[in-house]
Amino acid sequence: MLLKAKPLPLEADKPIAVLNKEDAKELGVKPLGRVRIKSGKKEIVAIVNEAERIVKPGEIGLYEDILERLKLDLRKPLLVSPEESPKSLIYIKRKMKGCVLTKGEIDAIVKDTVSNKLSDIELTAFVTSLYNHGMTMSEILNLSMAMKNAGSSLDLGGGKTIYDKHSIGGIPGDKTSIIVVPIVAAAGLTIPKTSSRAITSPAGTADRFECIAPVNLSIEQIKKVVKKTGGCIVWGGAVDLSPADDMFIKIEYPLSIDPFLLPSVMSKKKAVGAKYLVIDIPTGDEAKITTSEEFENLADKFITLGKKMGITVNAVSTYADEPLGFAVGPAIEAREALKLLMTGEGPADLIDKAATIAGVLLSFAGHKDGKTMALHILKSGKAYRKLREIIEAQGGNPDIKPKDIRLGSERAEIISKHDGIVKKISNRYIAILARQAGAPAHRGAGVLLHKKIGDKVKKGDVLFEIYAEKKDKLKLAEESANNLEAMRVGKRSSVTLERLPDKGNHREYFILER
Amino acid sequence: MLLKAKPLPLEADKPIAVLNKEDAKELGVKPLGRVRIKSGKKEIVAIVNEAERIVKPGEIGLYEDILERLKLDLRKPLLVSPEESPKSLIYIKRKMKGCVLTKGEIDAIVKDTVSNKLSDIELTAFVTSLYNHGMTMSEILNLSMAMKNAGSSLDLGGGKTIYDKHSIGGIPGDKTSIIVVPIVAAAGLTIPKTSSRAITSPAGTADRFECIAPVNLSIEQIKKVVKKTGGCIVWGGAVDLSPADDMFIKIEYPLSIDPFLLPSVMSKKKAVGAKYLVIDIPTGDEAKITTSEEFENLADKFITLGKKMGITVNAVSTYADEPLGFAVGPAIEAREALKLLMTGEGPADLIDKAATIAGVLLSFAGHKDGKTMALHILKSGKAYRKLREIIEAQGGNPDIKPKDIRLGSERAEIISKHDGIVKKISNRYIAILARQAGAPAHRGAGVLLHKKIGDKVKKGDVLFEIYAEKKDKLKLAEESANNLEAMRVGKRSSVTLERLPDKGNHREYFILER
Repeated sequence: MLLKAKPLPLEADKPIAVLNKEDAKELGVKPLGRVRIKSGKKEIVAIVNEAERIVKPGEIGLYEDILERLKLDLRKPLLVSPEESPKSLIYIKRKMKGCVLTKGEIDAIVKDTVSNKLSDIELTAFVTSLYNHGMTMSEILNLSMAMKNAGSSLDLGGGKTIYDKHSIGGIPGDKTSIIVVPIVAAAGLTIPKTSSRAITSPAGTADRFECIAPVNLSIEQIKKVVKKTGGCIVWGGAVDLSPADDMFIKIEYPLSIDPFLLPSVMSKKKAVGAKYLVIDIPTGDEAKITTSEEFENLADKFITLGKKMGITVNAVSTYADEPLGFAVGPAIEAREALKLLMTGEGPADLIDKAATIAGVLLSFAGHKDGKTMALHILKSGKAYRKLREIIEAQGGNPDIKPKDIRLGSERAEIISKHDGIVKKISNRYIAILARQAGAPAHRGAGVLLHKKIGDKVKKGDVLFEIYAEKKDKLKLAEESANNLEAMRVGKRSSVTLERLPDKGNHREYFILER
Repeated sequence: MLLKAKPLPLEADKPIAVLNKEDAKELGVKPLGRVRIKSGKKEIVAIVNEAERIVKPGEIGLYEDILERLKLDLRKPLLVSPEESPKSLIYIKRKMKGCVLTKGEIDAIVKDTVSNKLSDIELTAFVTSLYNHGMTMSEILNLSMAMKNAGSSLDLGGGKTIYDKHSIGGIPGDKTSIIVVPIVAAAGLTIPKTSSRAITSPAGTADRFECIAPVNLSIEQIKKVVKKTGGCIVWGGAVDLSPADDMFIKIEYPLSIDPFLLPSVMSKKKAVGAKYLVIDIPTGDEAKITTSEEFENLADKFITLGKKMGITVNAVSTYADEPLGFAVGPAIEAREALKLLMTGEGPADLIDKAATIAGVLLSFAGHKDGKTMALHILKSGKAYRKLREIIEAQGGNPDIKPKDIRLGSERAEIISKHDGIVKKISNRYIAILARQAGAPAHRGAGVLLHKKIGDKVKKGDVLFEIYAEKKDKLKLAEESANNLEAMRVGKRSSVTLERLPDKGNHREYFILER
């Protein structure tokens, strides 16, 4: 069928063509079916949408990106014909039926995903079916490798052994990577750390470190930084290590599911060439992993998968029943981390966690008591000197001081109404407050705890502060803080806790960070 | 956040708001999240899309239908705030986890579906999870009733007992309903038949009957027709009996799955007030149901569900290894049906099937040998006189003759290359040829068989004709006919069949008709 192109002022990540209902009927295609569009020698396959008024019979509505790709001469009619669904759809349907997919089938699905050939509905059916039916270890392996192969790789050359760490996330205030990387690099190991930005949490490591140094580096820039300093802390999203992962996340996020956890993490670690990897698995009531049985189960999967991919993995279960350190929010956490590195002093839990994880990596490299060595590197200032090198190599100011990191100018104090001790801190509520205050978009927004679990509290003491960049955000978070009992104060000897008020706002809270 | 409305020339069935990426970040919403948009006292919740160029910071791109619903004053800024996901999403996630949903949860999902509150991704997760996990009978019942309650009902009043029939589809040329309705109505029973249009087949009953009389009737018009004649053959889509079904079909179609078969059929039958129902289940190699065990399983489900809904159901397994009658395609089938009703003569399989199904309905009404009675009504001309009444009541010309139904002017004959007998006819390939020839959009397109299974064939005999309205469509179908062996001719005594050529065009063929 010959149709006249009608440019539509729209952006989409997939090629979409809008047909008038009558023409779609004539062509025998349905919404979310496909058409092949030819213009001279150029051609493209697009997913079909229908319209009744916007696109008239005889026209084909095309989004920006198709117009650009075809470099269309709008005066010439386009030859539009029905196109079959990609073969990978048949494999997706096999997974829907509960079959185990082969390597070739998984490769095809990932390839069609990254080349935007699958519609959101088809991708959702795939993601949902992986979630519903689970995956065998061989499927996880094949998916990890397919996702890795679909993206860029960081090849440092020179036969360097690459060390890496990853946290599956879920604990607010977790700025461990910022401490670990300089320690490990100061010990002479190579650790090219790529980190995520926040998706559903108040801050990702990339958001945090961006308050200290630029993190949007290209692959070439990263190579230079790592060759020079042994380490880096950069945003993984800028280097396209696993583009399939980004596309799956778009589907997972609105459904708050994460069947891709293992392939997502491991495809990226393979892409940076990691040989040794420590996985941090925060374990606690409000974390992704709540029991030691679940921890062992997940740890075993990471270790087994790593073995098949040529990566030696250790997993660490870490305490997750309160935020790590005192600061939650990009800038406020960056301050806390920078201060710790400068002085060697800071929150005990943060120091212990960073030393533990750095210690595992150091012991991989043959150092007997890795944790003690890590603590020494931190306390002696060697880690701070390494941090300065990394900051400078990434294009930042190595002389940056904690006070140079700007916090939100709006501030509220949340006061205790009782005497007692802190019996519980809700990670979930603290994260909600920090987000309501504007984090992560507002770098200066967040929550600064004054107390942690077990601390004594007097009526009138400040429990925590909320920082915001805008008055209305502060007000929103402050109101919530008065409704949600983010920090619970009770008598040490009493088993009667305060009754948690049910305000009916149990929105499913979900941290999807990789 | 205050944003300026920017009208986007787009149609969507759901309210969609396009935010600039920066504003979305600032608001803390992600694509497919939700925002509440307020304009004075009017407000609406929309699903979020992001843009980088089309919609600038400070703007909010709105589709046609939102603009109309809010009757916006474009000069006034809109108050836009993040909105939580609808509660039904939590229930969808419960189904994803394999839980059994309660009545209240199913009601909420269906309600939010028909009020366009769920995104395609969320609906796909629901449909896929129903497919993956299956449903209990109580879930099927609750879903059927929720879908029925979400739509219109046909209340004929006067305490009439309503009879109905339904075929789960899958066999080309199935014009049975057009024969059954006049027979049953001529016997004095009430049968308000609503039918579908073709979704993936060459013709639906509504497409066929539309070549004889108008089928787009309103509920009020249908009531009048049925009160006057006892029967009707109308398009169900015009009367909104199960709007949820239409929305689920949009998701099911691109995935070629049909977990909603039972609730879809039964919600509509309940909506027309059916008390007695016969379900036709075509059974054969290329049909949805291939074995008698599968038939009994599905039949049992329809019967059990019917009992719970107050509908007495019988199921009939019918032969499905070749098209029914000789004609496939809207007009050509209408001719065949009209001729049969006028003369009482026609294809033996079609007569037998129609008499069987009408017979079950007549026996529900207490007539002992329903099938013989049905045959008598057909042969005596009583059914034809009833058909004339129905045509006239629906606004058609009761004097219409088969030759008045226009067929496509383009015609090709497919000739046998061998002597022998017809050993196999592929429903799938015949349907593909009819669709390639232009059916159902081109009413006059289709296939006319000259031979059926077991018929003797001489080399050079016409096996079937292809009709089309357009030359290029005819050519396409004719070329396919030479590639696909839609009708296989072999020696009666030989077990060596022709080798079916594998042309690599095994597109998954799927008939979704309700």
